[in-house]
Amino acid sequence: MDNKVITKPIPKRVVCIGGGTGTFVVLSGLKQYGYHLSAIVTMSDSGGSNKRIRDEFGLLPTSDIRQCLIALSAEKGRTGLIRQLFMYRFEKGQGISGMTFGNLFMAALSDILGSQAEAIKQTGKVLRIAGSVIPVSFSKTNLFARYEDGSVVGEEHLIDEPEHDGTLKIVETYLKPRPRANPEAIKAIESADVIVMGPGDLYTSLLPNMMVSGVASAIKKSRAKKLFVLNLMTKYGQTYNMTASDHIKALEKYIGKTLDAVIVNDSGFPQGVLQKYKKLNEFPVVDDLSKTTYYTVVRTNIVSDKIAQKQKSDTLIRSLIRHDDTKLAAAIKEIVE
Amino acid sequence: MDNKVITKPIPKRVVCIGGGTGTFVVLSGLKQYGYHLSAIVTMSDSGGSNKRIRDEFGLLPTSDIRQCLIALSAEKGRTGLIRQLFMYRFEKGQGISGMTFGNLFMAALSDILGSQAEAIKQTGKVLRIAGSVIPVSFSKTNLFARYEDGSVVGEEHLIDEPEHDGTLKIVETYLKPRPRANPEAIKAIESADVIVMGPGDLYTSLLPNMMVSGVASAIKKSRAKKLFVLNLMTKYGQTYNMTASDHIKALEKYIGKTLDAVIVNDSGFPQGVLQKYKKLNEFPVVDDLSKTTYYTVVRTNIVSDKIAQKQKSDTLIRSLIRHDDTKLAAAIKEIVE
Repeated sequence: MDNKVITKPIPKRVVCIGGGTGTFVVLSGLKQYGYHLSAIVTMSDSGGSNKRIRDEFGLLPTSDIRQCLIALSAEKGRTGLIRQLFMYRFEKGQGISGMTFGNLFMAALSDILGSQAEAIKQTGKVLRIAGSVIPVSFSKTNLFARYEDGSVVGEEHLIDEPEHDGTLKIVETYLKPRPRANPEAIKAIESADVIVMGPGDLYTSLLPNMMVSGVASAIKKSRAKKLFVLNLMTKYGQTYNMTASDHIKALEKYIGKTLDAVIVNDSGFPQGVLQKYKKLNEFPVVDDLSKTTYYTVVRTNIVSDKIAQKQKSDTLIRSLIRHDDTKLAAAIKEIVE
Repeated sequence: MDNKVITKPIPKRVVCIGGGTGTFVVLSGLKQYGYHLSAIVTMSDSGGSNKRIRDEFGLLPTSDIRQCLIALSAEKGRTGLIRQLFMYRFEKGQGISGMTFGNLFMAALSDILGSQAEAIKQTGKVLRIAGSVIPVSFSKTNLFARYEDGSVVGEEHLIDEPEHDGTLKIVETYLKPRPRANPEAIKAIESADVIVMGPGDLYTSLLPNMMVSGVASAIKKSRAKKLFVLNLMTKYGQTYNMTASDHIKALEKYIGKTLDAVIVNDSGFPQGVLQKYKKLNEFPVVDDLSKTTYYTVVRTNIVSDKIAQKQKSDTLIRSLIRHDDTKLAAAIKEIVE
């Protein structure tokens, strides 16, 4: 008898940091490659369904968690139906319209299990997720932004959907009280082979992770390859007029000059859609990256051909132009392997 | 080689008719015996969470459906958690408090699938139910009651929780518009070996099934053994002062003298609890059944030793004294086999 040893390659450990639609797209795309996937998700959101989860249920926000769980969940069989439910937003019912089913599911489960952390884990099991979704922190906190005119805004959704002049530059952002990191988030970063940061709203989705005590230093120390996926469009109220290098500088404030690669879109957008963005004072991020950067710049077409549709019941403005999950994942894979 | 034919006994087809807690108890108890179980459930409820499902979501009421699905669902593994969720009633959230998770689950699923009937079936699969839960009808309707003083009340929850003098006798009840039966309900009755009617609120849970066009005549015609499980307590506003034989007469108005057996409790109740009921003008149903009935009278202890606890968020008055699922199922089994 032969003593054959079959050695399976150990899957690469890929940690995606962000929250929101950008991270949803990254995870959806990377899911197919069989990596060991983790998502570290910001917990300082305060808009829409999240606001109610925070104010009325006394829980931490779960919309970003929900999106990541959906991205990683099995799409077939009965789980596919549960997945659809998790994407569902109620359009009827006084006090219920606008709420997402997934947030209510996790709120009920948190009450039953007596722990929101446990509820998130069990939800992952129900959705049969491939990977893990890790809240960056379990401490309640609020995001603050200080603008160039000295004004300070103190809730995430007011930064996201500004009531002030949205062309003002953000000088500083911070979390108050400063939350401690979820130990699982630190562990995931420490054992990562690759860390993918973004895409996603810079100051309200990506960087709030770095502001959590212990996260930025863990990323700095980590030997993982560090990737940054640049946003396609600027965002009025937070990244108005910011170029590619401005985005990178904002990130480097937290993790230093430790990037290995930056993925930039080099394809155009449908004119009609750009007109709509222009009305909102939002524009494609200008690629001003110099030829001699310390990191690799990967320029490729990573734009989705589909234009995202706004749901009737959406309470937030959501992006119409999005990264394409397959194209983006393929670009990331080139760097991972 | 032997040609062994293993003949498994064909499981008895048991159809339980009712809705509400009584049917929940019957199904929970019978589940262990491996019968082919179906529950035919009233669809004219209009109180509490159901009212909102009807008025705000434009759907048929699902609270009774939900209870039956829970009774028949698997209790172990991940399904056990979903089962717990289905029993959950929100206590927080403006406009959400008081709603049951299960009703919201089915409302979301009805919207996704475009059919409430399909949503109920898929929910049964998610809960891995052993058996089937059959809405008696899919037509929207309202329950009416005419009282001995000539007054008419026109919504189920106003009969259930009367605003008038609850000692008034109900002379007549009817559904308006008169709904057509769900063909699956008729089919289940036609192929039943045993039909179990009750326990449950006589005029608001059990008899509304019989008022649906086609149901009573199918029961009459059926060759199945017909059992009636008598309620433990009278209910102010609908069965005040009614004895055992009064209950049976009310049922016979629909199905004629076709009963095979009546199961009556012969055990006492804790005094303290009876005092509480007395304050609500509710009393144990007096067993006045004569010795020479055309049906068998089974007298046995079928009372639960546990006193049911009222939940903080309960919007309805629920019974404290309940049938014991194991004892009741054992009594039914004696007749089935």
